Amino acid sequence: MNYPERIERARARMENMGVDVLLLSVGADLPYFTGYEAMPLERLTMFVLPRTGEAKLVVPRLEAPRVVAQPDVFEIVTWDETDDPIALVTRLADRPAVAAIGDHTWARFVLDLEAALPSTEFRKASLVTAALRMVKDAAEVDALTRAAHAVDVIAREMHGVRFSGRSELDVHRDLVDRMLELGHQRANFAIVAASGHAASPHHEPTDRVIVDGDVVLCDFGGTMDGYCSDITRMFVVGEPPAEVQHVYAVLMDAQERAVQAATVGTPCEAVDAAARQVIAAAGYGEFFVHRTGHGIGTEAHEDPYIVAGNVAPLAPGHAFSVEPGIYLPDRFGVRLEDIVVATAAGPRRLNEAPRDLAVVA
Amino acid sequence: MNYPERIERARARMENMGVDVLLLSVGADLPYFTGYEAMPLERLTMFVLPRTGEAKLVVPRLEAPRVVAQPDVFEIVTWDETDDPIALVTRLADRPAVAAIGDHTWARFVLDLEAALPSTEFRKASLVTAALRMVKDAAEVDALTRAAHAVDVIAREMHGVRFSGRSELDVHRDLVDRMLELGHQRANFAIVAASGHAASPHHEPTDRVIVDGDVVLCDFGGTMDGYCSDITRMFVVGEPPAEVQHVYAVLMDAQERAVQAATVGTPCEAVDAAARQVIAAAGYGEFFVHRTGHGIGTEAHEDPYIVAGNVAPLAPGHAFSVEPGIYLPDRFGVRLEDIVVATAAGPRRLNEAPRDLAVVA
Repeated sequence: MNYPERIERARARMENMGVDVLLLSVGADLPYFTGYEAMPLERLTMFVLPRTGEAKLVVPRLEAPRVVAQPDVFEIVTWDETDDPIALVTRLADRPAVAAIGDHTWARFVLDLEAALPSTEFRKASLVTAALRMVKDAAEVDALTRAAHAVDVIAREMHGVRFSGRSELDVHRDLVDRMLELGHQRANFAIVAASGHAASPHHEPTDRVIVDGDVVLCDFGGTMDGYCSDITRMFVVGEPPAEVQHVYAVLMDAQERAVQAATVGTPCEAVDAAARQVIAAAGYGEFFVHRTGHGIGTEAHEDPYIVAGNVAPLAPGHAFSVEPGIYLPDRFGVRLEDIVVATAAGPRRLNEAPRDLAVVA
Repeated sequence: MNYPERIERARARMENMGVDVLLLSVGADLPYFTGYEAMPLERLTMFVLPRTGEAKLVVPRLEAPRVVAQPDVFEIVTWDETDDPIALVTRLADRPAVAAIGDHTWARFVLDLEAALPSTEFRKASLVTAALRMVKDAAEVDALTRAAHAVDVIAREMHGVRFSGRSELDVHRDLVDRMLELGHQRANFAIVAASGHAASPHHEPTDRVIVDGDVVLCDFGGTMDGYCSDITRMFVVGEPPAEVQHVYAVLMDAQERAVQAATVGTPCEAVDAAARQVIAAAGYGEFFVHRTGHGIGTEAHEDPYIVAGNVAPLAPGHAFSVEPGIYLPDRFGVRLEDIVVATAAGPRRLNEAPRDLAVVA
């Protein structure tokens, strides 16, 4: 990745937005600009990027060996166990009128920096970074495609896997292992939810054993070479009852309509509406309890959000999930998810695994 | 765990500290008081605990099925995808003069709440919660002991495991798998660092293959029934050279001295000094680049920190790591870590796995 170019674009946007210094800590902004990911621990790591002047990466001395030097991007400044990193960052920030601080920065550091810089106005770093990160260049789309194809392989494999007699946790562990084996450095999540459990969209896998007749939702993703995957496919043990088939047919139609709606210039909320209309028309509107999708890139969830109220138009290079769901409390839930990139030639799905309700043993 | 009692103690401390409302989101405070862990995602979860009046748990509607209701502790308030959770929390907080916000809360929520509550002074939640969480009761010490014994089993097993010819990542995966198999719900980390890599205290495992003569540092821990484990043991492939033996003997002595120093009433920094003096006297002072330890409980790192400058005295029920290290750049590093609880009868190690430099194949 071309970090110096990204830094230049951030500086241009800081200029436009009247931001004097960008302060990045844990979260996806930091690796986007530096290649370095801060450990989510109590010792402060902070990238200090003034609009003009040299960028510094402030890191605890014992974590400094983890940093891959980027001398054309930043200078490393280490601090020792008994130093005060807040004082160090305050000095490097050099009395900014406006500081933009990483959206995931821990409150304890925000409050300490606010106290140390009482005349500085603090804003969210996403004001500067979201617009940049949202538009993926060709190399980024390639990285997202490789991650998508890796989870596609797993989704396909699962057609031949036995579900019956195994627990949700067993299947979960397989998904995690396969993501790591197929090139992901990190498995971010692997939801496996059988029947009633699948009515909870963010169910965490349990020792519940999957049995004949279960409808099983598998939603899994991880990080591969810095970019995220995220896919949901549905499985059923034995022949599905007519109601399940009907609900799933509605869902497939809703997802397809939403994908087709995701053309450049379309407001994000119109993509959400495209899925929602199909589901509502079939009488399941109240059971589609979440937005249709989220952006994806170096972070599993990022801008643009495919949700009512987001009137921002899709642009070429926007990458996002399209994942409507229908959740019937205590009975079953279904969701179907692909990653889609908006292009001048129309919406492009990155996932290619079969989208049907897979009958498994 | 007795959540109502913990809430009562928090309220008493809020009274003492002049805090009107406690606002908890991601991080270990929330499960400590409610049994519920917020998902680290962009949808706000927030526990709103006024000093007087009813506590509410604000959660996104699609995550509400994950919450185990605790009707004697809080009422669940859900919000939908197009609602404004900041407005909801602001209303529930009811114009506090002083709000204490969870130390790990994301900056984006801190800044939004500060803007929505312009006359409120924001402080860190740890002002209220750290003193409570720091002192473990008998049930918590039992939970920490069970977690410690689970990783002890793994440390012992590794004496019979082959290291030579396997990569750091291979050994890392074994550690993660074994933690999950032995009752941990989550593996938080598993550092495997061979020779030169071990000179980086927070090294992340790579595909570097371990060979004859390597000194291998293994530092691993996870979460079991809400409480954390954390252990470091050292392995060497074949007979260790005299220098490694000497450095390790210094380290074992330093760790033992620090553990013995950890008596009730002793300032935390004196425990750090006890380890540091031994290492400095042997001529390795400059290579012990981190503090001696950190508190442990529902969070892997929490108060009390065993570090120079922390003059707070140890009290019965304080639980913390004692983990001095010696890191010789590009050559090798050694660390030895046990979890220790301060008790009226003296320091009590929770880990019982052999502490010697284990010779492995």
